[in-house]
Amino acid sequence: MKYAALLVLLCMTVACSTDDTVATVEQWPHIPAGFPPVPVPADNPLTKEKAELGRFLFYDKQLSLDGTVSCASCHRSATAFSDAPNQISAGVESRRGQRNSPMIVNAAYAPTLFWDGRAPSLEEQAMAAFLSPVEMAADTFAVAAYLRRQYADRWVRVFGDTTVTMMRAMQAIASFERTLISANSRYDKFLRGDTAALSTSERRGMRLFFSDRTMCGECHGGPLLTDNKFHNIGLFFHYFDKGRYDVTGNLDDEALFRTPTLRNVALSAPYMATGDADPGIMMTLEQVVDHYNDGGKPFATKDKRVRKLGLSDQEKRDLVEFMKALTDSSVITDPRFADPFR
Amino acid sequence: MKYAALLVLLCMTVACSTDDTVATVEQWPHIPAGFPPVPVPADNPLTKEKAELGRFLFYDKQLSLDGTVSCASCHRSATAFSDAPNQISAGVESRRGQRNSPMIVNAAYAPTLFWDGRAPSLEEQAMAAFLSPVEMAADTFAVAAYLRRQYADRWVRVFGDTTVTMMRAMQAIASFERTLISANSRYDKFLRGDTAALSTSERRGMRLFFSDRTMCGECHGGPLLTDNKFHNIGLFFHYFDKGRYDVTGNLDDEALFRTPTLRNVALSAPYMATGDADPGIMMTLEQVVDHYNDGGKPFATKDKRVRKLGLSDQEKRDLVEFMKALTDSSVITDPRFADPFR
Repeated sequence: MKYAALLVLLCMTVACSTDDTVATVEQWPHIPAGFPPVPVPADNPLTKEKAELGRFLFYDKQLSLDGTVSCASCHRSATAFSDAPNQISAGVESRRGQRNSPMIVNAAYAPTLFWDGRAPSLEEQAMAAFLSPVEMAADTFAVAAYLRRQYADRWVRVFGDTTVTMMRAMQAIASFERTLISANSRYDKFLRGDTAALSTSERRGMRLFFSDRTMCGECHGGPLLTDNKFHNIGLFFHYFDKGRYDVTGNLDDEALFRTPTLRNVALSAPYMATGDADPGIMMTLEQVVDHYNDGGKPFATKDKRVRKLGLSDQEKRDLVEFMKALTDSSVITDPRFADPFR
Repeated sequence: MKYAALLVLLCMTVACSTDDTVATVEQWPHIPAGFPPVPVPADNPLTKEKAELGRFLFYDKQLSLDGTVSCASCHRSATAFSDAPNQISAGVESRRGQRNSPMIVNAAYAPTLFWDGRAPSLEEQAMAAFLSPVEMAADTFAVAAYLRRQYADRWVRVFGDTTVTMMRAMQAIASFERTLISANSRYDKFLRGDTAALSTSERRGMRLFFSDRTMCGECHGGPLLTDNKFHNIGLFFHYFDKGRYDVTGNLDDEALFRTPTLRNVALSAPYMATGDADPGIMMTLEQVVDHYNDGGKPFATKDKRVRKLGLSDQEKRDLVEFMKALTDSSVITDPRFADPFR
């Protein structure tokens, strides 16, 4: 009975939103059909003015130690808010970290952030990058003075008073990120009923992707195309980067990394670029498919579903074609997400 | 008194060998002037026939799982027995490890091998590479049968009986490596009295290298131009590769790595290529000098002698010129070290 009610509700939801571009009442932030509501922390209610302040802060290089780096330096709109094609991003004074910058479109839905999931919220993720010596290396005294000077009016409108704290700044940035939601790929159009949106090869790739044979969809499934969990996929015989283990201290978590969304994956090379030396890193989706087809290296914590697949060349091409159909080019050019300083 | 005697002895040694190419009695293995005697383990006496067997085994690809990889695949004579310019070497089935293959000329003198010093002898180092799944991945049953078939006569001459063990094979390889000794760089010629062997810039670089100002020679000193100890030089703010710590479990050893010899350094790029992601890796000696001149990143175990140097451009060039004068091209072409299968 409970399930029947749920099914009715689900059908209604889908029925009400088959045409994603029409909405009688403006919905904000815009939630694509099939996407869940945006989770918002109780202590950081989402408002338009806060998100707009956050957009300014996201693009403001003055928040970094030497005025050269903003959030957007390593999360650029042109590459779906990743830092493609760089394996490692440059922070202040060209300092460099160890892991690849992920995309942040639809990051609103991620229960944990960073490859090892050590940040439980967008606020904490933003704070970590803001303070990291290899990223923005913020001088918080200088930033506080700058924010008070530069953003006084907006600040009062958003927070109700002039008190500048770094956490408030991060709350604004996280609010902007929560509006960075998009699902206008050809795959989405196909799901919304436009069967011509995908080519024959892409449709073959889609079926293969979600099949029991490849099991791609087991981790890269759901509307976000990620399970937001942690897995080892057998990149190395030995990992220096211990991934999730460094967060939990649980040996079963050794060298597990968070499943990235595959939305916009074609824009976000390189792939598999966590903290180990270069051989695991792949520049093309073809290499990614080859990795999964080969089944990866044996490793104690490797997910058993990563195993030899025996795909034909055509099947491999189909999978790549399908992944390319996950690109949502609207997010790149959307003025709501663009640099306000330009 | 003791020191005076030592000094006389030292002068005699130098006097007897100012011309390194002439020797009245054949010395084997050939020890350059100023080099100590070769340390040889009590259970593996060094003989010419064993070293010659070792040369064959060093170059024999049949010792690897699929017949594609020998020791010499990643320690090629043309690059002073390193795998330059590869950051990471390819083992069987193109499997790849995580750290750069070091040069092995003069490795006879190293008290420990590998970047983290986990092998206490050449025998154990060779065994580890021979068995490593990402290097030769040897099938020891198959190798034993092959050695018995292919090397029967030599084996009896070297070991006195037909018993084939993997340790004997490694002892032969280590014996070959103990003969891989060379010091015929222009720097060596300069030390032997040929003052014209170094240019003005190289001599300036040499003085700077061994000065208290740069302190290069404190770790890269002595005849081997290495202290064979472990240091952190501030490559990263964070290291995934814990280096020596993984051997000792001592936190003071976190991210320490063995000092490489600078002999033939110009042939052995990239530099600083241990297990962390790419930004620490340098392809040129100019980058190496820039790193030391900048003083590196702060890190808990960083050697205090690595600090900002304030070198002029000319001084940096001089240091690079000096390091290039450490190249011993004779070792590359020496037929005693060459592939016997060619």
